[in-house]
This record gives sequence, C-alpha cells and structure tokens, in this order.
Amino acid sequence: MFHITHKDKQTNARIGLLKTKKGTIETPFFMPVATKGNTKFMTTHDLEKMGAKAIISNALILSLRPGLKILKKFGGIGKFMNYSGINFTDSGGFQMYSKFIYISSDNRGVTFRNPFSGEKLFITPEENMKIQLSINSDVAMCLDSMPMYEHSKKDIEEAVKKTLIWAERCKKEHDKLQKNQKQNQKQLLFGIIQGGIYKNLRKYCTQELMKLDFDGYSIGGFGLGETIKEELDIVKLCKSILPENKPVYLMGIGNPVEILEAISHGCDIFDSRMPTKNARHGTIFTSKGKLRIMQKKFQLSKEPLDKNCDCYVCKSYSRSYLRHLLMQDEGTGKILVTFHNLYYLQNLIRQAKEHIKKGMFSRFKEEVKRNYKE
Amino acid sequence: MFHITHKDKQTNARIGLLKTKKGTIETPFFMPVATKGNTKFMTTHDLEKMGAKAIISNALILSLRPGLKILKKFGGIGKFMNYSGINFTDSGGFQMYSKFIYISSDNRGVTFRNPFSGEKLFITPEENMKIQLSINSDVAMCLDSMPMYEHSKKDIEEAVKKTLIWAERCKKEHDKLQKNQKQNQKQLLFGIIQGGIYKNLRKYCTQELMKLDFDGYSIGGFGLGETIKEELDIVKLCKSILPENKPVYLMGIGNPVEILEAISHGCDIFDSRMPTKNARHGTIFTSKGKLRIMQKKFQLSKEPLDKNCDCYVCKSYSRSYLRHLLMQDEGTGKILVTFHNLYYLQNLIRQAKEHIKKGMFSRFKEEVKRNYKE
Repeated sequence: MFHITHKDKQTNARIGLLKTKKGTIETPFFMPVATKGNTKFMTTHDLEKMGAKAIISNALILSLRPGLKILKKFGGIGKFMNYSGINFTDSGGFQMYSKFIYISSDNRGVTFRNPFSGEKLFITPEENMKIQLSINSDVAMCLDSMPMYEHSKKDIEEAVKKTLIWAERCKKEHDKLQKNQKQNQKQLLFGIIQGGIYKNLRKYCTQELMKLDFDGYSIGGFGLGETIKEELDIVKLCKSILPENKPVYLMGIGNPVEILEAISHGCDIFDSRMPTKNARHGTIFTSKGKLRIMQKKFQLSKEPLDKNCDCYVCKSYSRSYLRHLLMQDEGTGKILVTFHNLYYLQNLIRQAKEHIKKGMFSRFKEEVKRNYKE
Repeated sequence: MFHITHKDKQTNARIGLLKTKKGTIETPFFMPVATKGNTKFMTTHDLEKMGAKAIISNALILSLRPGLKILKKFGGIGKFMNYSGINFTDSGGFQMYSKFIYISSDNRGVTFRNPFSGEKLFITPEENMKIQLSINSDVAMCLDSMPMYEHSKKDIEEAVKKTLIWAERCKKEHDKLQKNQKQNQKQLLFGIIQGGIYKNLRKYCTQELMKLDFDGYSIGGFGLGETIKEELDIVKLCKSILPENKPVYLMGIGNPVEILEAISHGCDIFDSRMPTKNARHGTIFTSKGKLRIMQKKFQLSKEPLDKNCDCYVCKSYSRSYLRHLLMQDEGTGKILVTFHNLYYLQNLIRQAKEHIKKGMFSRFKEEVKRNYKE
C-alpha cells in the first residue's frame, strides 16, 4: 500500500508511492482543498493542468450538500466532480468544531447544527464511516475530536480520549463495511493524532492509534495558533514513534517553509486552504518569498508574479494587471492568483523530490527558507 | 477596411472581413463584454479557447481604473490584458447615463460622478476621443447621449441632437489626433445611431451620421425595455439607409434569436453582458432553448448542459454538478457556465456563417427560433 523509493541522506525526507483504489501517487504531495466538491475558483481541468494529483473534501459538508443521494448516483465524489486524481475526505470534524455549528460531543459522537438548515444533527463514528464510504473517496479520515489551541490541557486530554475511542470504533466499522471488498478496491483509512502541543498526550495518542494499524496516520490540530517550533517538535516526536512504512499526513499546513521542514522530518502528505485564501487576498508565493500584490508599488509593474515560475499565469500576465483585477474584486483575478499559488506549491514539492533524489534536500530547504525570511 | 465576402440569397445576412490595426476579423461576430479589462470569470486564455476574437471594454471605467497612466505604460488595453484579439471600446456613455452617476449633459459634454471617488467629472467629446486613443483600442465609439426607453419623444429628440453634435466633434478630433498615423495603424471610429423607437428620429440620426463618413455605424439604445419587434423595425430601417460597405454593430444584444434576426437584416457585430450575467444566475443557452439549471429537476441529472455542444464544460461536467456549484455560489460554477454560454454564442454564429455560405441561413434561423419558443 505504501513503499519508500528514495531516502534523503541528511534528513528524514523520503519519496514514496501510495497505492489507492484509484491509482498510485508519489509522495510527498500537497492537496488543494475542495471542501464542497471544488477548489475555490479552480476547475478540475485547472487542477490537472497544475499537476495536483490529489485533493481533499469535507465528508460532512458533502453529505449535506449536494447530499449522499446525488453522490451515490454518480458513483462518488471523484466522478461527480470529474476529477482524475485521488480523492481524500476528512470526516468533517474540522468544520464541526467551528463555534458556529458545534453543540456538544461525548464518547458516542458529536452533536452539531446543520449549517444549511439549522437542524441539530448527531453523528457517530460508525455513521461517519458510512458517509465517507458513500462518498466513495479513496482515502478517508477517522472522526476525531479536535481541541482548540487555547483549550486547557485537561480539555485536550479529554479530546484525545474521545479521539481514541472514536478511532477504534471507526476502524472496526470501516473493516466491517469493506470486508467483502477486494484488497485493491478498498478505501484507505487514516487515524488522526491529536494532543495539542503536549508531548505526552501526542505520544500516548500515537501509540494507541498504532495498535489499531491504520493505513496511514494524520497529525491533526495544527494551524490554530501554535508556533512553528511547537508544531515541528510535535511532528518530530510523532514521526519518531510511527512506523516507517506508513504514510504520514500533516493536516492543515500549506506554508512553503513549514511544508519543507515537515518533509525533512518525514511527512508525506499536506493540505491547506491558506494558499488559495491568501491568493484571493493578494498574498502570493514566489521563489523570492511572499509578495503582497495589493501594494501600490506594483501598480505599474510589467513583471510576472514570479520570474522563475513557468505557470501560465506568470507567462501571460503582469503584476499590474493581476493587482488591478484583485483591487476590482474580479473573479478573473481570483482564478489567476489561485492557480499560481497552487502551482507554486506543486512545483516546490516537485523540486523538493528532485533534491531528495540527489541527496541535496537540506541545501534546497535552507535556500527556500532564506527567501521566506521576512 | 470592410468588405463583404458572402451574401445570403433570401435575407440580408452577410459575411465580411473587418480590417483593424490589430488584424482582420470575420463578421458577423459576438463580443464578450470586458468592462474593466476582463470578462467576468474568464481569463484571456478562455476567450481565445472559445474563439472570441473581439471584446469590448468601457473607456470611461478604464480611464478611472486602472487609469490611463498604467494603460499607456503597457501600450494599451490589449497588451495590458494580454489578449490576442481585437479590442473595441465604448465611450462609456452607457455607464455615464446610469442614474447613479449621471449628473447633467449639454452640447459641450457630460457631467457625471466618478463612481470610485465620488468627485464630479466633466467629459467633452474631444476628451473622450483622447481617452480612447490612450487606451489604444482598435475600434472606438463616439460619445453618444443615450436616452432611456421611458423618456418622452422630446427628450429623445434632444438626445439625438446632442449625439449628432458630439459625433461631429468626435470625428473631427479623432481625425486630427491620428492625422500623422499610417492608414493601417489607425484606430477605427464608429458613429452611434440613437432615436429610441421613433423611426423619424432614427432615420434623421442615421442620415446625419452618414455625412460624417464613419468607419462603421452602431445602433445603440436597445435592450432597455422595448419589444423585439420595435427593435427589429428600427434595425431594418437603419440598415435600409446605411451604406452596404460599412460594418453595422447592434449594441447590447446577446439573445440568440435576436442576434440571428439582426444578422438576417445585415447586422455584423454584437455584444451584451446578458449571456454571462444570465449564466451566473443559472440561465443557460442550449441547442434546445434556454435551460434554467437551478431547477430542482436537474439535481440528479448526469446530462451535460447541452448534448449537442462540444465545449469542454459540456464534455466534462453534468448538470447536477454545475447546479450544485451555482447553488453554493462557488466561483468555479460561475467560470464553467460563463464559458459555456459564451461558447454557445460563438458556435451559433459560426453555424450561422456556414448556413449563409450555403444559402440556407433562413432555415437555420427558423430552427433556432423554434427551440427558443417558450
């Protein structure tokens, strides 16, 4: 299901092949977020053109809109959106824990408010597995209990306990639901490690999840206010415990430098809504660091967003034109900067892999870091 | 500058070649609207892919945002937006007469409120010509005074008088500003016929404009509440007076049936924001007539928007998926339906031209009309 093809000499960076029922994908990779069945302002043609070979959607949101009836009729999310790549789904826990829709949770499951209808909904881990199988994604996530960064250690300890109880129930149900499925037709299931910035909680959570032998392990609960150092310390810890032959997915991380750091620790999979959201608000990734395209100094600039980028946006449009479109809040501008930022990350990881193969990953990472120092 | 290559036998439909400084374009053609330097939710790559070989922008809006300084630096709107086709500009009269920004007008020019800064601005016909030359479009329009449909005949008569005074001043200034320009490097200038639904006013306006010998003639002031019959009666009248060897642009018309009717009367050029605006709100052009994609009955439909359409949207996505995206107000949905509606019109006119060449245009027009009967 996962095997490593290359290892860096100086760091724990690695290249691997992850086999899913829809095809094999080389790791590491970055997934654009497609919460509702599309990446904002991108078509699946755009995603394919930029080389995004996997995306992640939100199972909870999809089960409400367009709804499981439609997704089942189409044979799942991949066919519904006509995407040739690999479809991941998150349980939707991330959305469920938004303060606007979260009501309560206990060992049995989560109660939240349907954001579309206002109705109360109760979801068990078992039901969540059924939903993700109906959506027919290629890789599913366990239902997890996501503590907030500002929560007390006691709250986070509770969340870890619930996450582990739910993980066991998810795994059992997922195995049962797929027991008659051929091995190569099975949806994969990843366990999610929680525990905030507390090493003992993260360690405990990792060890307990490993007993359930998931297809892969996700490190969740980041991007919520912790420092990069806090995050990377936890990543290092988890990776020191996790088995080498399982893919590791660092959830919610889309910053170029953080991605490279996490790759150097042996993380394989990434996603984040930040690169697309930032793009729409004018923060652009370039080979020279972040560019704030809304700044007045770019008003007359004939330069592309990034001279060293070979995406169609950089080959076709000036900073001046893109700035004008974003200033006027035009969808066309959002399309173009979104494409560039996502292409940048695809290309960054492509370069990272080349450098891993040549055993020069560290040097590459340091170079990118220097450009992103602000 | 314009010559006719084919004539239909039964109607006044014709195919011609219009030569501009940026290249030659076959008529009839439909121009997507690119008011602010982009067609909403379309990139210039999309426009080129769908075969849109000309677009129309708004000179007044462009002169305010991004402003003439930027446009001059880039060598004009075509290079600024990196569009390979032909750029038309309207004077901006259409926007100026919006009740939100119009203040007053007299024989000297128009006073309006800058929609961005709130400042009062006074524009003369001469200044408008300078603006359109700075924008460096390939085809410019005279500053015209656009009466509203609900205005009295007296108001409209006043508007015609102003339009004619301004047309003369525009032509004089435009000739003067380009007198040292080589013939094949000159921006073309079209006069605009006003007069509402009053035949005597339209006739007078047409005859007076013809004395000024414009490069082409636009029929303006439609799409404001008049019936199709009222509109086509005026089109027929104007065309009966206008010389054969000048291109005729029916402004603001984007309905498939109206376009074909106008082609049958010998109109050559069209534009409208309606096809893109309607698309975003779920009204789709198809070979079987209009489709309201938001209707619940399309919720589970695996069919493309139009089985007979070969655009990439119809080859890739279902009605169900597109409906879902539009219902969720996703930019991706707006991109896809906008592309389809504009492609539909490009393809409709391509088919119209084939039928003119075969002398079978009337039959084709009647067939399309039958499908659009509601």
